[in-house]
Order: sequence, then C-alpha cells, then structure tokens
Amino acid sequence: MASANALAHPNIAFVKYWGNRDNELRLPSNGSISMNLDGLYTRTIVSFQPSLPYDELIVNGHEIAGKNLDRVSQVLELVRRMAGSKMHAEVMSENNFPTGAGIASSAAAFAALALAATRATGLELSESELSRLARRGSGSAARSIPGGFVEWQMGTAEKDCFAFSIAPPDHWDMVDCIALVNPEHKKTGSSEGHAIAGTSPLQGARVADAPRRLAICREAILKKDFEAFARIIEHDSDMMHAVMMTSTPPLMYWQAITVEIFHAVRTWRAAGLAAAYTVDAGPNVHVVCERASAGEVERRLRELPGVGDVLSAGTGGPAQIV
Amino acid sequence: MASANALAHPNIAFVKYWGNRDNELRLPSNGSISMNLDGLYTRTIVSFQPSLPYDELIVNGHEIAGKNLDRVSQVLELVRRMAGSKMHAEVMSENNFPTGAGIASSAAAFAALALAATRATGLELSESELSRLARRGSGSAARSIPGGFVEWQMGTAEKDCFAFSIAPPDHWDMVDCIALVNPEHKKTGSSEGHAIAGTSPLQGARVADAPRRLAICREAILKKDFEAFARIIEHDSDMMHAVMMTSTPPLMYWQAITVEIFHAVRTWRAAGLAAAYTVDAGPNVHVVCERASAGEVERRLRELPGVGDVLSAGTGGPAQIV
Repeated sequence: MASANALAHPNIAFVKYWGNRDNELRLPSNGSISMNLDGLYTRTIVSFQPSLPYDELIVNGHEIAGKNLDRVSQVLELVRRMAGSKMHAEVMSENNFPTGAGIASSAAAFAALALAATRATGLELSESELSRLARRGSGSAARSIPGGFVEWQMGTAEKDCFAFSIAPPDHWDMVDCIALVNPEHKKTGSSEGHAIAGTSPLQGARVADAPRRLAICREAILKKDFEAFARIIEHDSDMMHAVMMTSTPPLMYWQAITVEIFHAVRTWRAAGLAAAYTVDAGPNVHVVCERASAGEVERRLRELPGVGDVLSAGTGGPAQIV
Repeated sequence: MASANALAHPNIAFVKYWGNRDNELRLPSNGSISMNLDGLYTRTIVSFQPSLPYDELIVNGHEIAGKNLDRVSQVLELVRRMAGSKMHAEVMSENNFPTGAGIASSAAAFAALALAATRATGLELSESELSRLARRGSGSAARSIPGGFVEWQMGTAEKDCFAFSIAPPDHWDMVDCIALVNPEHKKTGSSEGHAIAGTSPLQGARVADAPRRLAICREAILKKDFEAFARIIEHDSDMMHAVMMTSTPPLMYWQAITVEIFHAVRTWRAAGLAAAYTVDAGPNVHVVCERASAGEVERRLRELPGVGDVLSAGTGGPAQIV
C-alpha cells in the first residue's frame, strides 16, 4: 500500500474560464487568472492498494459512484500509466466548504487528487506537470496547483496548457467575501456548461477579446490598482454570464439577490468602499476587496436580506502535501 | 395656423434594436421586430404658427426645453424642409403611460410627431416615408408607424431604412403584460446607450447573428408558434442586455426583481403557462402571452413582491390621425 495526503485550495477566477477548445483534454478556449482561497480547502488521501478491484471515492464520509467516480478514475488512470502501476486506489476527500455551490469544489478536489495520487505512487512531478494533470480532472483545478495569484495560459497544445503563479500570496492582501445565497446544488454543472459554451453566438467574441482582459487584469494585480482590477473582474464576470445566458439551453445562474449585490457593490465602490464582484457557475457572489475593507464588506453583505452566510478567504498558497 | 392631431402606440421589440451604424441618421446596426401596444398611446397636436419665434414642446402639460426639445425641433426642421415652410410649431403631447420607464415613450412620441407634423403642413407621406421620418427622432419610432407586428429592416442606406407590417394586429391575439418594477426615470437614456453599444466586445457578434434571430422570430410570429417565439425573444433580450452590461460604462438595467421574474416566467412556461419575457432599456419586464393566458399571467405577476403594477396591452394598430 502506497498513500499520500494532500491539501489544495479552491480558487476564484478574475478572468474566467468558460468553454474548451478540446473537451476531452480540457484545453480551454481562453486563458484565465485567479487567486487561491486561503482557509478553504480540500484534503485528499489517496491509497493505492493491490487488493482493490476498482477505484473507490469517499467525499465527506459518503461513498460516491457514477460520473464523479469516473472523473476521478480517469485521473488515477493517467497516474497509473505514468507510474507503470496497475493498482486501484481508495480516495478519501474532505472539503471544509459546501460542495457544488459555485465555489469550484472540483478545482480544489482535482488539484489535491493530482498531488496526492502522484506522490502516493512515488512520482515527483513539477508544478507545471501537476497543473496539467489536475486540469484533466477539472479545468480550473490547473489553477489550484500554484500559489497566490495564478494565470492559466491556454497554450498551443496539451504540453504548454498549465497554470503558474504571477504573484505570491503576500503580494496583495486580498480577501474574497463569498455571499452564499443558495447553498443547494446547482442545476447545471460546469462540465456540462463548458460543453455548450459554443452554442452562444457571443462566445467567439468573448474568447477573441480574452487577451485584452487578461492583460488588463494581470497588470492591475501586479500594480495593485484596485479600481482597474474591480472594473475588469466585473466586466469579465458579466461577459461569461452573458455567454451562459445566451447559450442553448440558456444557463441563468443569477438569482434576484445576485443582481441586488451587483448594484450594492457598485454603489459602495462609488461611495469609496473599494470592492468588486465576480460570480462563477452558481448564484453566489464573490465580493473581492483589500484586507482593510473586508470587515465592512462582510458586515454589509450580511445585512442584505437573502444573503445566508458570508465565507471570507484571503490569498491562498499552492497545493501541498500534508 | 395649420395643425393636426395624431396618435401612435409604443411598441415592444421581440428582436431588439441596440446600436447604430450611423448615429446621426439613426441607421441601426441590425434589423428588429416588434409589436405595437394597443391601449397605450401618445397623442400629439402639432400647430405651425407664423407668430412663434421658436418651437415649443409641452408634454403632459409641462413645457419642455433642452435636449428633448432639440430632438423634436430636428424632426420639425426636416418637415419644414420637405414642406418649404419656415413656421415654428407648438407641439402638445400626452402619454397615457409613465414616461421614460422602459416602455419606449419616445417611439410613440416621435411616430405621432412625424404623422401630425407632416399632416399639419399638408404633406401626405407614405407609410415608409413616415417611418423614416419618425426614425430620425427615435430609432424605434420607425416601428410605431405601421400596425400590428412590425419589422424594421436595417436597409442599405437611409432610403430603405424603414419599418413595415409583417402581420396585422388581428393575426395573433397577443398581450404584453408589463410588470412595472421601478417607475422612476431611468439613469441612462436609450440614445446615450446606443452610442456606446460598440464599446461592448460582444456587440459585433450580436449584430452578426441578428439575421438568424430575425428569421426565427419572423417565422414564429407568422406560424404562431409560441414556444419558438418564447425562446427567441428571451434569447434576443438577454443578448441585448449582455451587450449593455459589458459596454463601457456598463449598463445594468436589470434589478433583483427583473431576474426574479425571468425565473418565474420560465418556471411557469415549463409548467404549461405559455408566457415569455423581454426587457427594454429599463428594469420593467414585458411578459408576453396569448390572450387566453393574460389574466393568469397578470395575476401571478401582481403576486410577486416588488412588482408595483401591471399594464396590459394587446396588439396595436398603426399611427393614425385623430
């Protein structure tokens, strides 16, 4: 028996990933930029055992079968091939945040899986190799391998399609205040969503414009220019949701409270409280701000009727063995 | 003194007009399709008087100066040129619906103005000439000249950029139930909005895709295929708002209740109540349905907290002299 225990953070994208140019290899249609979320994590123990007749997946104490197990097995299969092993594995994973509520649980899950599974078989992959491997399970998991502020380059092929840090966690003391507005499991998962991104007449334009948004976002982060950062992350989030809601079938992840928070955040910012919104494939709203404003932002979010709870997370480090 | 009194209905667009290829002439970036709204109207009396030193505009009993008067004067100037007249005019206009609340008051206003002003000077313009003239005051006014279900073709130049009926009012007994969610005057008027449409990275794709949406909508109306009609008008509305919210500055016309109504309407439709939403440059939601469903749709809209009032309008006729 060979086992390893790894931890990875979810991440919040500032320039979003939506749509693949290759669904099988999860090669994205455009590059993306994100920040890892400190304090939130998935911990995963992978144990390869000669006695196991198939892979087993236990998430938060519940045995999982079906599509989710298949996705995990696909990544394990890649690891087995690299390691020249035929053993099946038991994967035990725990999240300290609600699963499937738009906090990209699959990103943290597949980053932790990639790291734990390779180490369990004795493989020592480089950061970019791990990022590529995590990507095969969930595209955004590529971004949960490196630490801090991360860019996932779309690359030209499978080999150069990975993520890297553009700034370490302590570069900019940013906090993501996540307004949880609907803790139920979302109706359409990201994988299905990515597959229909191309049905929106707007996706081509969103993708073609991505280098502009990436450049603005990268520069705003490197210069710590919050106003530029706020404008571009809201713009990019709205562009992704524009594609989602105009795809076939339409994906409207926003709820009434989602839009209410948009207006509130812009009103706050106009009045001097520097905060910006971004939304993933779910109704929750991530309100991002500098540490000094986080208490006030969190307090105001909690005051809004319809906001259930607020999770706050600073800038997190890379996936790591624990 | 030469005067005439005309009435025109506002219209609700099913394939939207957003952005001009020529702002001065109001030549739109894409064609559009709409329905006139019976029961709602603007009545306008235009009196050319030799004694007037300048044009006067009175709307709902209030004298109006500034930008709105300038727009009216521009249309009157075109009429004076056609008629070979130098007289200024008094324009008295009354709406029976709230102004500037996203019910396209300018469409009815400029359609009625074009008709009244030309008749007052003794001109008898054809429908397409009237449509072109109304267009100069407000693009969507071109669609309030013909009756029933109307298409405004983008044309190749000024001369063929006008609207015409694609089906008379009695072709399909449709009702627009307008949920008024915010009767205050909107922050950004349509004219300013059209001018920045091109700043959205998505506008080019929306425009390029317009012939497809026009064809689907036209066919759905002609065949009275409500399900196809519902899908295309919601899709088109979402595409316009996608452009609005991703322009610079971003225009987010939706409120919390707007999105709540979207979800409600789709839930109702999935459960068999045939209704579809569309939203203009304001927070109000137009919920369109066949006559038989209108009572139920109106009742359900009124039950939603946040809906102030519901105006209902059937399919209206052309602009006319009264």
